[in-house]
Amino acid sequence: MRVGFIGLGKMGAPIAANLKAAGHEVRVWNRSKGKAPQGTRECGSPQEAATDAAVVCTMLADDAAVESVIEGVLDGLSRGAIHCSMSTISVALSRKLRALHEARGQRFVAAPVFGRPDAAAQKKLFVVAGGAAAEDCRPLFEATSQGVFPVGDDPAHAALLKLCGNFCIAMLIEGFGEAFALSEKAGLAPSTVAEALSKIIFGGALIPSGYASRIAQGQFTPGFAMPLGLKDVSLALAAAKELNVPLPLADLIKNHLIASLAQGRGSWDWGGFSQILRDQAGLAQHRG
Amino acid sequence: MRVGFIGLGKMGAPIAANLKAAGHEVRVWNRSKGKAPQGTRECGSPQEAATDAAVVCTMLADDAAVESVIEGVLDGLSRGAIHCSMSTISVALSRKLRALHEARGQRFVAAPVFGRPDAAAQKKLFVVAGGAAAEDCRPLFEATSQGVFPVGDDPAHAALLKLCGNFCIAMLIEGFGEAFALSEKAGLAPSTVAEALSKIIFGGALIPSGYASRIAQGQFTPGFAMPLGLKDVSLALAAAKELNVPLPLADLIKNHLIASLAQGRGSWDWGGFSQILRDQAGLAQHRG
Amino acid sequence: MRVGFIGLGKMGAPIAANLKAAGHEVRVWNRSKGKAPQGTRECGSPQEAATDAAVVCTMLADDAAVESVIEGVLDGLSRGAIHCSMSTISVALSRKLRALHEARGQRFVAAPVFGRPDAAAQKKLFVVAGGAAAEDCRPLFEATSQGVFPVGDDPAHAALLKLCGNFCIAMLIEGFGEAFALSEKAGLAPSTVAEALSKIIFGGALIPSGYASRIAQGQFTPGFAMPLGLKDVSLALAAAKELNVPLPLADLIKNHLIASLAQGRGSWDWGGFSQILRDQAGLAQHRG
Amino acid sequence: MRVGFIGLGKMGAPIAANLKAAGHEVRVWNRSKGKAPQGTRECGSPQEAATDAAVVCTMLADDAAVESVIEGVLDGLSRGAIHCSMSTISVALSRKLRALHEARGQRFVAAPVFGRPDAAAQKKLFVVAGGAAAEDCRPLFEATSQGVFPVGDDPAHAALLKLCGNFCIAMLIEGFGEAFALSEKAGLAPSTVAEALSKIIFGGALIPSGYASRIAQGQFTPGFAMPLGLKDVSLALAAAKELNVPLPLADLIKNHLIASLAQGRGSWDWGGFSQILRDQAGLAQHRG
Repeated sequence: MRVGFIGLGKMGAPIAANLKAAGHEVRVWNRSKGKAPQGTRECGSPQEAATDAAVVCTMLADDAAVESVIEGVLDGLSRGAIHCSMSTISVALSRKLRALHEARGQRFVAAPVFGRPDAAAQKKLFVVAGGAAAEDCRPLFEATSQGVFPVGDDPAHAALLKLCGNFCIAMLIEGFGEAFALSEKAGLAPSTVAEALSKIIFGGALIPSGYASRIAQGQFTPGFAMPLGLKDVSLALAAAKELNVPLPLADLIKNHLIASLAQGRGSWDWGGFSQILRDQAGLAQHRG
Repeated sequence: MRVGFIGLGKMGAPIAANLKAAGHEVRVWNRSKGKAPQGTRECGSPQEAATDAAVVCTMLADDAAVESVIEGVLDGLSRGAIHCSMSTISVALSRKLRALHEARGQRFVAAPVFGRPDAAAQKKLFVVAGGAAAEDCRPLFEATSQGVFPVGDDPAHAALLKLCGNFCIAMLIEGFGEAFALSEKAGLAPSTVAEALSKIIFGGALIPSGYASRIAQGQFTPGFAMPLGLKDVSLALAAAKELNVPLPLADLIKNHLIASLAQGRGSWDWGGFSQILRDQAGLAQHRG
Repeated sequence: MRVGFIGLGKMGAPIAANLKAAGHEVRVWNRSKGKAPQGTRECGSPQEAATDAAVVCTMLADDAAVESVIEGVLDGLSRGAIHCSMSTISVALSRKLRALHEARGQRFVAAPVFGRPDAAAQKKLFVVAGGAAAEDCRPLFEATSQGVFPVGDDPAHAALLKLCGNFCIAMLIEGFGEAFALSEKAGLAPSTVAEALSKIIFGGALIPSGYASRIAQGQFTPGFAMPLGLKDVSLALAAAKELNVPLPLADLIKNHLIASLAQGRGSWDWGGFSQILRDQAGLAQHRG
Repeated sequence: MRVGFIGLGKMGAPIAANLKAAGHEVRVWNRSKGKAPQGTRECGSPQEAATDAAVVCTMLADDAAVESVIEGVLDGLSRGAIHCSMSTISVALSRKLRALHEARGQRFVAAPVFGRPDAAAQKKLFVVAGGAAAEDCRPLFEATSQGVFPVGDDPAHAALLKLCGNFCIAMLIEGFGEAFALSEKAGLAPSTVAEALSKIIFGGALIPSGYASRIAQGQFTPGFAMPLGLKDVSLALAAAKELNVPLPLADLIKNHLIASLAQGRGSWDWGGFSQILRDQAGLAQHRG
């Protein structure tokens, strides 16, 4: 199908390439030029990328970036065409985008993804898809992911599920951080604990095992940066506050992310907020 | 080998039976009589169970229960024989038991296990083994478990690793409790979130998936009771306090367990402390 | 002097009356009509209230209310005239208002007040005043308060100090809530604890003693409502997040306020968030 | 009356001297010799100090120290005589002491005191008194304090009220620590905030004003040491756990005290745990 694709950052570029490789006609737009994957056509504006597209995908950094292109997308899309938002954005913005599109007779799907850039390149993402038109986007999801989780007709639900997922990862960081600070001070190597818990509790699953191992070794080379992690936890907290739901663990994590920024660790992978637990226990920073 | 086995509760009985089935000569003792698995010999005292044993295992509810039999074990064991403690006990008691046995020329192994009674029956436990004599106990571990994780010569390290493991499970309960309270109030079924997160974040691993599913459905039929959960989290906190390690997530969990007891939910599986998050969000109790 | 006064709610009306009583010429504006204190002149718009005023005061509920009148104030005020903001607003809005006024050659003072409506009526408020023109407003402050605390040239500092003050009151509510839940379950009357602590720790000071007494007795008749309390704590947290400062106690309080709203207690005085501590301890709600 | 006095540390010595000065016959015992105030008679054992006394007071560091003398006190006291425990001890030990004394026909009063050594010297302590015989000790209390707060017949209630009081002081440290870290990063001098809040919120009361001022200036010269503060907060948490009462603020404080010990600040006045908030916000340690 004819697909518009807006946002060619670390995640967007490989996804757009996957869509092209799957046989779709892909017209791309990015704020800075020269990032169009081979075989895609670079457009001069978000509106142009949306014009005549069956689906226009957006894959951008945050709410503000999505809001900066939404006018063009609304103006470009035909009635009945779909805006498929793959970014991790607020529940409130998801709700607003749905209303804006529906007011124009357009359709809105929220389809945030799980996975890092290498997973995107290997078509190993997971997609969480919300919106009445989600099934119509399935060919696109299948071109770039290993699994699709439909959550029904409400795009805001997909946004929320994505935030819950990132919260769960942050929970692992906090938990491992505490457990390893304790075991290290007791003279028990964190890597021993990491290996045992990865197998016993987490059945060797990649995400928990990977975080456990990296936290045990203090490997926080750039990955998912602290400010992005703080953004996502803050979005979960904002959604929760609106609904009168206390999330004390999310607040604890938020504070450890804030403290990490205050220590000048903003460029570390967010797994590095576990160092705050080490700081508090009087353990030195890992050498890296 | 000749094995003494003290403690024939829900965990101890199937383990003792496995040891017998694996060909060991098993002499058992339990506070209340009539629980000896077929083919084992019931003794009149802990001391008798320990006498002439190559290894005497203890599998008891808590520190106090272990302390109530330790004199008999010390008196019964020969020099060079092994006390293999499989209970989840405090780090401090592990340290003390080691000293007591070494003072008599006996050997001490801490080998706490992961898994519920059905896993014990199916020889699917995991064993974490600490102590210089741990390798000598391996035939026993292999008779009842699917995996053994040696942690070196210090039995206290095995005790600590077990506490870290239970803390990780409690972390899952807290995290799922928060995520599901939020999603439910947003109109997104917790079971949908549970399924997606189980696969996406936890690769379908049994422990996280099982807790996610049960918490989403509010299935807290008797399993691992709240007071036992509180005991284990408190033991982790006690070990941490001794070493000057703050564990704020463990405190959060402790408070939710305490609040659960205050609501009269002490007989629920500890997964049910997630209901505290629902309480705070104004969500009614699951029907169960 | 000639004073404009915008906002005649529970706090604004008595303050405006005090200014009139002190001999100032007071022109008022309020969203709903008919609230002008005797001797003041009701205006048709915020702009009219600001026109030709030496100082225009605003005393409104929140950021949004202030933003809804700011255009009129900017248009009405002469060069060199003063906007004196007495509302409890965000640090960010204080900063923005300063910039807007300075761009027009006007002066901005932030002068939030401490005290409830009865204190306003009795000229017993405390004023925290920030901004280079604060001294020029002193006659106004003295007409309605028992004390003025200048904080220097930055209006944002006065906004922040006000938020810190309300945070300290919330801290008292949390602390008393915990102490009284504990003592009540131990069979020791909270009112006994309240009296002793008020005198021993707080030297009988009115604010801590008053909260202690009301919390001990469960008197949460409408006063400073929960949503306003949550707003103020959230403003402190927002200011802190911007500066990378974790405030874990503020988060704890936030969560107890959120939980109170989820229990349908939004109309109670915010001292009533202490009931959350009682809930968690399994203590019934006070009869009130 | 004839008074035995056990424990002549920083608090005990001036109290014993006050009792002597008030005309009582005072027989003292202390672990290390040579500390008897002028006019008191030094005894060779706790039992000797208790023998023939109408009241024997104990003023010792902690539960263990009290337990180390209790046998002598029990053996020395006559039937109907009083043990007046002025130490800050656990609720559980208060309960146990009452039972031990009642079993011998002796009477037990818990009368912990508020105030530092200089207040003791100036007869400015506050006494919280629990136990049926408390009134009989009033002459002693009046000889050393500015106020007595009776809490009824249960000595454990006095122990608990003392713990609640120290918890309230710790609450002030936490709150001021957060507020001042925030204001300092915003460029607003903590001392300005301390002065304003001391007057506005706390009416200039000595305890909150003193802590505010010292925390703002980073004056943590030896006073009430961190380990003692941690002991008292831990005793409150232990009492609360026994009664199923969550105390999340007490846990937060506990963790900041633990972290302070981990940073090697154990000798500072406990007001210094506020530095943990500064650490987390990236603010350097005060010069002191």
